[in-house]
Amino acid sequence: MMSKIVDDYNTYRQKMNDKILAADNLVMKRFYNLDTNTYQDGALTSKTKEMLGFVASMVLRCDDCVKYHLQRCHEQGMTNEELFEIFAVANIVGGSIVIPHTRRALEFWEELHQ
Amino acid sequence: MMSKIVDDYNTYRQKMNDKILAADNLVMKRFYNLDTNTYQDGALTSKTKEMLGFVASMVLRCDDCVKYHLQRCHEQGMTNEELFEIFAVANIVGGSIVIPHTRRALEFWEELHQ
Amino acid sequence: MMSKIVDDYNTYRQKMNDKILAADNLVMKRFYNLDTNTYQDGALTSKTKEMLGFVASMVLRCDDCVKYHLQRCHEQGMTNEELFEIFAVANIVGGSIVIPHTRRALEFWEELHQ
Amino acid sequence: MMSKIVDDYNTYRQKMNDKILAADNLVMKRFYNLDTNTYQDGALTSKTKEMLGFVASMVLRCDDCVKYHLQRCHEQGMTNEELFEIFAVANIVGGSIVIPHTRRALEFWEELHQ
Amino acid sequence: MMSKIVDDYNTYRQKMNDKILAADNLVMKRFYNLDTNTYQDGALTSKTKEMLGFVASMVLRCDDCVKYHLQRCHEQGMTNEELFEIFAVANIVGGSIVIPHTRRALEFWEELHQ
Amino acid sequence: MMSKIVDDYNTYRQKMNDKILAADNLVMKRFYNLDTNTYQDGALTSKTKEMLGFVASMVLRCDDCVKYHLQRCHEQGMTNEELFEIFAVANIVGGSIVIPHTRRALEFWEELHQ
Repeated sequence: MMSKIVDDYNTYRQKMNDKILAADNLVMKRFYNLDTNTYQDGALTSKTKEMLGFVASMVLRCDDCVKYHLQRCHEQGMTNEELFEIFAVANIVGGSIVIPHTRRALEFWEELHQ
Repeated sequence: MMSKIVDDYNTYRQKMNDKILAADNLVMKRFYNLDTNTYQDGALTSKTKEMLGFVASMVLRCDDCVKYHLQRCHEQGMTNEELFEIFAVANIVGGSIVIPHTRRALEFWEELHQ
Repeated sequence: MMSKIVDDYNTYRQKMNDKILAADNLVMKRFYNLDTNTYQDGALTSKTKEMLGFVASMVLRCDDCVKYHLQRCHEQGMTNEELFEIFAVANIVGGSIVIPHTRRALEFWEELHQ
Repeated sequence: MMSKIVDDYNTYRQKMNDKILAADNLVMKRFYNLDTNTYQDGALTSKTKEMLGFVASMVLRCDDCVKYHLQRCHEQGMTNEELFEIFAVANIVGGSIVIPHTRRALEFWEELHQ
Repeated sequence: MMSKIVDDYNTYRQKMNDKILAADNLVMKRFYNLDTNTYQDGALTSKTKEMLGFVASMVLRCDDCVKYHLQRCHEQGMTNEELFEIFAVANIVGGSIVIPHTRRALEFWEELHQ
Repeated sequence: MMSKIVDDYNTYRQKMNDKILAADNLVMKRFYNLDTNTYQDGALTSKTKEMLGFVASMVLRCDDCVKYHLQRCHEQGMTNEELFEIFAVANIVGGSIVIPHTRRALEFWEELHQ
């Protein structure tokens, strides 16, 4: 069963993305499409790419991007131990300002496991 | 009729700005004053300057700054099509971490049109 | 008596930090420990170091970090006048994108004095 | 006659971009292509879009991006007075950390006029 | 044979790190030590962690951090194709402001292969 | 005797600042003036304010801002031990991406003592 917090996040994300795409701005549509293609299997697996997207979102401190990539990482089978090793990289590279985002990321990760 | 979301934003902003100015710190007062002067008509129109302030707020990912400049852009007659072309610049320059802010900016923009 | 806003912030912070430390990732545990040690008395007083941590959090625009350091600064006897002089440095160095964080910092500061 | 500084910048930029595109990574090629399309005439003129790209590069403090957009703005007929009004927006929004980038931007702007 | 550019980078880095550690500031020494430990084999391989550190350095636009992690990734056997897939993630997440850092990263990567 | 590196930095800074001010943009002139006023004695001493400006410049990773504030801190009598405690705050708050800026800051600090 999906958690309400995860569901609300996905519903809002989908609703607003639909509106953005409906505006028919060609650059925006292509960028969204490109964003999706970026994380497909290649020389690196999709799982590794999602972990790269996740750590990048952590150090740039974008909570909503973190939530998006956490879901993809979860679907790709990322373990709890792997999560914390990525947290470690993000906190060391990005410093203590990453800590509040680590707290919120862990909370969302727990919601994904309900 | 003004949307409740827009109204709440403006009320909180005004209340706290008043408190900040009441503290009588000279640097803060001058900086606030200077901030207001920056967007006045000059070689560039006020509308263009507000669009510059808006795109800068987008790439720096400051939601409250985005809301402020969206109101000013709205008052200056920015169209929907212009909005999306600025979204495009902000997303390409700033990357996919700007997407969540694009969603919230569009939501606020819709509130401004109620 | 502690304000509900301050209390909620501290409760959530403690709850999630406990979970993060319970995961037993060695890098994370050492980094958290190091973070605490950073602000102890040395050549600079703990008060000065907390003010340094506070201004750094302001310009990096991390509201939760700002709240944490504001509490420590408050415990160390930072005055209202000193607060606004740090606000001035943060706003001049970091620009008008720091203003929304200044509003929220002042609100939290007022909660600390209830 | 083109200044040596401008010429060196463009030569290096072109040489490395060619190598990046030669690697035949589809996401990178599409992103580069999209980046170029972003600044074409639309609801907003190409000149306005280049000024948006310029101010975004200033507040994100990317000297090479600043140089790129300064050249485009110059080609689009941006005046000296307009330049300084964009400097003003960038410095007020982004703070005094933008000042060193303002100095280097002005130096490159002068090179463009040799 | 090591390239002069790589050698100069490493020599300066080592010389200044030695001076920083010689100052005997306990927090700095522990942080440097912790930084090294972060990328050791664990649930994720050292190679994956170095790629995480590399992409984080790219989106945070720290050229010297990029150079450091590129060397570690090179030692861990990262291929050219993997490099460009990480470039793709970094450019999409971080936007066109990452492009100049991509150019310099590729140049340094080529030096590592001399 | 002043070091050539320090002297070159100051000469370039002064030359370009003079050109910026000569352009007679009112916002820019007032902002520069305000920037200077920010660090004067008040509830906090000028020395403390310069240290605040220095740590803010470190975490925002602006080498030229770091150099400027290091000179002011040096004039105000900041000691070597105090410097390293500020380095510690900056590295812990801002993470390992601050390390390259720490190396360059220490090098400039040594030049100030020649």
